[in-house]
Amino acid sequence: MREVSIIGIGQTSVDEHWNKSLRELAGEAIFAALFDAGINSIDGIFVGNMMSAMLSKQDSLGIFINDWLGMPGLEAIKIEAACGSGAAALRAGIMAVSSGEMDYVVVAGVEKMTESLPIETTEALATAADADYEAAQGLSFVALNALIMRRYLHEYGWNHTHFAPFSINAHANALKNPYARLHEAISESDYNRARMIADPINLLDASPTGDGAAALVLSPLSSSTANHKKRVKIIGSASSTDSIAVHSREKLLWLSAAENSAKKAYSQAGITPEMIDLFEVHDAFSIMSALSLEACGFAQPGQAPRLALDGEIFPDGSLPITTLGGLKARGHPVGATGIYQIVEVVQQLRGEAGPAQILTANIGMAQNIGGSGATIITHILSNDRLP
Amino acid sequence: MREVSIIGIGQTSVDEHWNKSLRELAGEAIFAALFDAGINSIDGIFVGNMMSAMLSKQDSLGIFINDWLGMPGLEAIKIEAACGSGAAALRAGIMAVSSGEMDYVVVAGVEKMTESLPIETTEALATAADADYEAAQGLSFVALNALIMRRYLHEYGWNHTHFAPFSINAHANALKNPYARLHEAISESDYNRARMIADPINLLDASPTGDGAAALVLSPLSSSTANHKKRVKIIGSASSTDSIAVHSREKLLWLSAAENSAKKAYSQAGITPEMIDLFEVHDAFSIMSALSLEACGFAQPGQAPRLALDGEIFPDGSLPITTLGGLKARGHPVGATGIYQIVEVVQQLRGEAGPAQILTANIGMAQNIGGSGATIITHILSNDRLP
Repeated sequence: MREVSIIGIGQTSVDEHWNKSLRELAGEAIFAALFDAGINSIDGIFVGNMMSAMLSKQDSLGIFINDWLGMPGLEAIKIEAACGSGAAALRAGIMAVSSGEMDYVVVAGVEKMTESLPIETTEALATAADADYEAAQGLSFVALNALIMRRYLHEYGWNHTHFAPFSINAHANALKNPYARLHEAISESDYNRARMIADPINLLDASPTGDGAAALVLSPLSSSTANHKKRVKIIGSASSTDSIAVHSREKLLWLSAAENSAKKAYSQAGITPEMIDLFEVHDAFSIMSALSLEACGFAQPGQAPRLALDGEIFPDGSLPITTLGGLKARGHPVGATGIYQIVEVVQQLRGEAGPAQILTANIGMAQNIGGSGATIITHILSNDRLP
Repeated sequence: MREVSIIGIGQTSVDEHWNKSLRELAGEAIFAALFDAGINSIDGIFVGNMMSAMLSKQDSLGIFINDWLGMPGLEAIKIEAACGSGAAALRAGIMAVSSGEMDYVVVAGVEKMTESLPIETTEALATAADADYEAAQGLSFVALNALIMRRYLHEYGWNHTHFAPFSINAHANALKNPYARLHEAISESDYNRARMIADPINLLDASPTGDGAAALVLSPLSSSTANHKKRVKIIGSASSTDSIAVHSREKLLWLSAAENSAKKAYSQAGITPEMIDLFEVHDAFSIMSALSLEACGFAQPGQAPRLALDGEIFPDGSLPITTLGGLKARGHPVGATGIYQIVEVVQQLRGEAGPAQILTANIGMAQNIGGSGATIITHILSNDRLP
């Protein structure tokens, strides 16, 4: 099995892109990634997307985007795993390269969410939950997360305000990211006073939707390329799953798929959690940051808010998270999010994160979640500066 | 890169399954495939599906089905490439095994189309076309194929009635397949008198929708398994693409993606087209059978109707096609179709096709098409009876 590296990255800003279609957004990110990699010929393309059929009446996104790129003939498919579609597409791309089927592969994530009515977007997002046993009962996606957060507060004795650092950190970091959706610092009192969405989740616990695309170029680690020095290695890649319906889980407050995929990725990478220099968590809601940190071994069960309150998750802390804004402030164009996370880790590992740069960034982790913890995919990357 | 074999198959009938949900259908096919393979533990699951988000309000089908199987923790994703979703999922499954990432993999295709209003199904099918330049102009999927067939009749001088053998053969073969949607022999005069759908495509040129699921179990060829003797080898697997919009193609009547993927698959298998004993074509419309036969080298351009009129496509001809009914009569539950085709080739190569058995079945080919020729995936399988 061949090792795989990332040799190019590209992204659009996350925004309301009224003047750009789904294919234009994807093309912009992919051309940027190809330019960054210094190549103009690839063997295949894997597209992560969740909602284009429902919101843009366009499916078959693999060929749709491939066609737009002007690269007929390539193998091109779409991968879907709800909000984990981006990282799931990366998994497929990695397997295509590691198997030897392909050498140079583009993996892209794209989503266009802001042209639809909010009710349409909410309905499309709800297809990630169990249609028969959750969505049909009126449980929206935010409502499911609210049930989980309510239980967490009850079980571990925290107050809502103790989650403020997650959102404050994300918003502060996004100020340094030109591609982020929200450029607005928030204070603890802003957080406490924000409009309630689904008790106890308020507006500043929730990530914003958005239009956006991000892309990667993969190659075998052994390939010599023009951009050799910018190469980042994929040293861990693992996916795990849990029940789709939240009520079926053995432990409501434990992301077993996060634990399993992280453990597998640590083992592949030959590292312990302490060696991770930064962690792009899937903070679709602040409760998810806490659960993810705990399941991945960075905090004891029920203790992630302590890590946040102690400032360890900030850029100068022991485990910086959401270093370029996270889902909360960079924005969450769902099928693209998993690729944005990887692009951002690569920016950090290359030392190209600008004012958001984490100084000791040699090993970075990203975790992408589909559903309320149903599909969880963990990637660990490293640069060539490691001994 | 490890070679891959198919060690288990399963399928439901294609029908109006009012009493079975999407997960029950998929589960039925997958459990049958696992039972057939004689194993109860797998490493991952790849699901081909096109329309569940639009028609059943359920996305995230990988974990959705994995959950239903009672196999939490497995990597599980959905692959979509319109009507080519089934074979695209198989491609992903093959890469997972050939890369060494996984040993035992389930690849399933499932689609539930008959609970929706016809207009909803038509709209969902149209997402395989170009939303901006085709669907938005009112071009339904059958209308696109009608334009192609009209041009074919004009260009090559055939009459509509010359396509009758494709449908007659499919319907006759489906009589011998208990899983087929239609069990009704048709005559040339039935074909000629059928209700017009989109001129020149009439009802007996078009495949019926349906609910159904089919599944495969893959393993490395080198694995020793209980069902060793039933093992079928995947000796060719290739995917190619063309423009999504039909008007962008250089040649309207030439499926370049079929030619490219077939040539690549022949080369991988080390065979010539003459060595193929049976061919499961993607006869969503009878015109597609003709174009596919020509692009794959079985007939000169414009001459596929001659092959059919000469009886060569019938079970006792030189190249039997749609041996268990094809899309036309087995039925076309779109995301499942590519897997049904593979299941049927395996039945033939194992000698388990019952009254539909092709006597000299040692090498079989299946071709699955997404869109009007946009994504075309070719698989070639062989049994162990080859010298």
